[in-house]
Amino acid sequence: MAVFTCAIVVATFMMLVAAEPTNKTESAFTAKFTSNLDSVTYTNLRIVFDSVLTNIGDDYNPGDGKFTASIPGTYVFSVTLMSKLSSDSAAFGCLHKNDIEQFCVWSNGYNAHEMSSNTITLKLVKGDVVDVVLKAGSSYGIHNSGTAGYCSFTGFLLYPQESLLEKLQEAINRLN
Amino acid sequence: MAVFTCAIVVATFMMLVAAEPTNKTESAFTAKFTSNLDSVTYTNLRIVFDSVLTNIGDDYNPGDGKFTASIPGTYVFSVTLMSKLSSDSAAFGCLHKNDIEQFCVWSNGYNAHEMSSNTITLKLVKGDVVDVVLKAGSSYGIHNSGTAGYCSFTGFLLYPQESLLEKLQEAINRLN
Amino acid sequence: MAVFTCAIVVATFMMLVAAEPTNKTESAFTAKFTSNLDSVTYTNLRIVFDSVLTNIGDDYNPGDGKFTASIPGTYVFSVTLMSKLSSDSAAFGCLHKNDIEQFCVWSNGYNAHEMSSNTITLKLVKGDVVDVVLKAGSSYGIHNSGTAGYCSFTGFLLYPQESLLEKLQEAINRLN
Repeated sequence: MAVFTCAIVVATFMMLVAAEPTNKTESAFTAKFTSNLDSVTYTNLRIVFDSVLTNIGDDYNPGDGKFTASIPGTYVFSVTLMSKLSSDSAAFGCLHKNDIEQFCVWSNGYNAHEMSSNTITLKLVKGDVVDVVLKAGSSYGIHNSGTAGYCSFTGFLLYPQESLLEKLQEAINRLN
Repeated sequence: MAVFTCAIVVATFMMLVAAEPTNKTESAFTAKFTSNLDSVTYTNLRIVFDSVLTNIGDDYNPGDGKFTASIPGTYVFSVTLMSKLSSDSAAFGCLHKNDIEQFCVWSNGYNAHEMSSNTITLKLVKGDVVDVVLKAGSSYGIHNSGTAGYCSFTGFLLYPQESLLEKLQEAINRLN
Repeated sequence: MAVFTCAIVVATFMMLVAAEPTNKTESAFTAKFTSNLDSVTYTNLRIVFDSVLTNIGDDYNPGDGKFTASIPGTYVFSVTLMSKLSSDSAAFGCLHKNDIEQFCVWSNGYNAHEMSSNTITLKLVKGDVVDVVLKAGSSYGIHNSGTAGYCSFTGFLLYPQESLLEKLQEAINRLN
């Protein structure tokens, strides 16, 4: 009897976890850009990192370059871009959350291809869109070579918003 | 009755979790430097990343640039700095834990602004202070442009030292 | 009695967790390269990051530069390399999983030492080996200065493959 009852508490807890529409608690992706891209004068260009290395949760879309959060919580994002080899070109890209700039990377190609990275933490609600754009301008561009991943976009869920502890508390409350 | 008793085990567990003075299990921050800074000859200068993008747990102080661990555990830190445009200047900064150097980034500005990053894992006890300094010297400096975040400081708690499992075990021990 | 029975559920859960051969749920390391290295023409050279800053779980071997996964799951890896000061030299290194290239970093030393980083997520099964090589070629090399960590290798377990929830479910199943 006691075993059965105790199992009810735990089962309710499990049910609450499973009650999430997507039942996901993990989200992690890395995608590499496998081509070259030049900026245009008046519009930012979204960079479509087309070669997927990891995509736990399928929140990243390699078809359009957009990450769409399906789990609210705190995420970590890292972006790396490589410059073209040109004295007046720079790899100038920014990470956007819902079209609002969060941070940028800049890498100049004066005498050589150079790479630049940046890593941030970011709180997201369900549905938030995160992507990386090559800035509008006459002399920006990114270089790549096959699947070497000189230009890469990585993100992962660090803390889901509703923790296991909160779900456990809710399970106890329901039985009292 | 059984429900009640089982709830006691779980409640004790929750209580132990809540017994932490701060009741925190998350810590994650990103701050951007929004100005310019030149080195001085004889003293390291702490870089005050003044624009906060994320500060879960409020362990980072944008007023003085110090991260102070309130939760013991294993952390990840990432630092990105951008050089000034000068043939003899470099962005030379190091991450310190309690004033002891852990790792550095170096970026030269010979023909262009360049960015450099580094990412590490680090065990911290409660009260440990982590900050980033621009090294003493005549020709070091960091460049920035508004809130682009070319110079950024990010950290997050990966593993709290006392795990949920340990707390659960402790709850069972108290009832036996 | 009820306390005792409830404790059995929890104890079985704990036992299942402890039943893992290594009983580990954490893995995180950072190691720095403290020397200099030049490429050879026909063979990739594994970079032995010899100075350990963190090694939770001891999955990284500073003697040979290999990380061997003891816990299956999703990992994050970050690599930073610094170029030598030479117009025709580059720090060209790649991260391998079981000898297969996953991504590369490239940093040119035309007028100055420059650093490049890259960060990715990667799914690993138990026994997978992850290491970083300096690519074969006549003009590749990495530079360092003491324990500044201009060349660093970091990795950490983000999501263990078998979650606590799955273990909890298994414990309940065994008692029913």
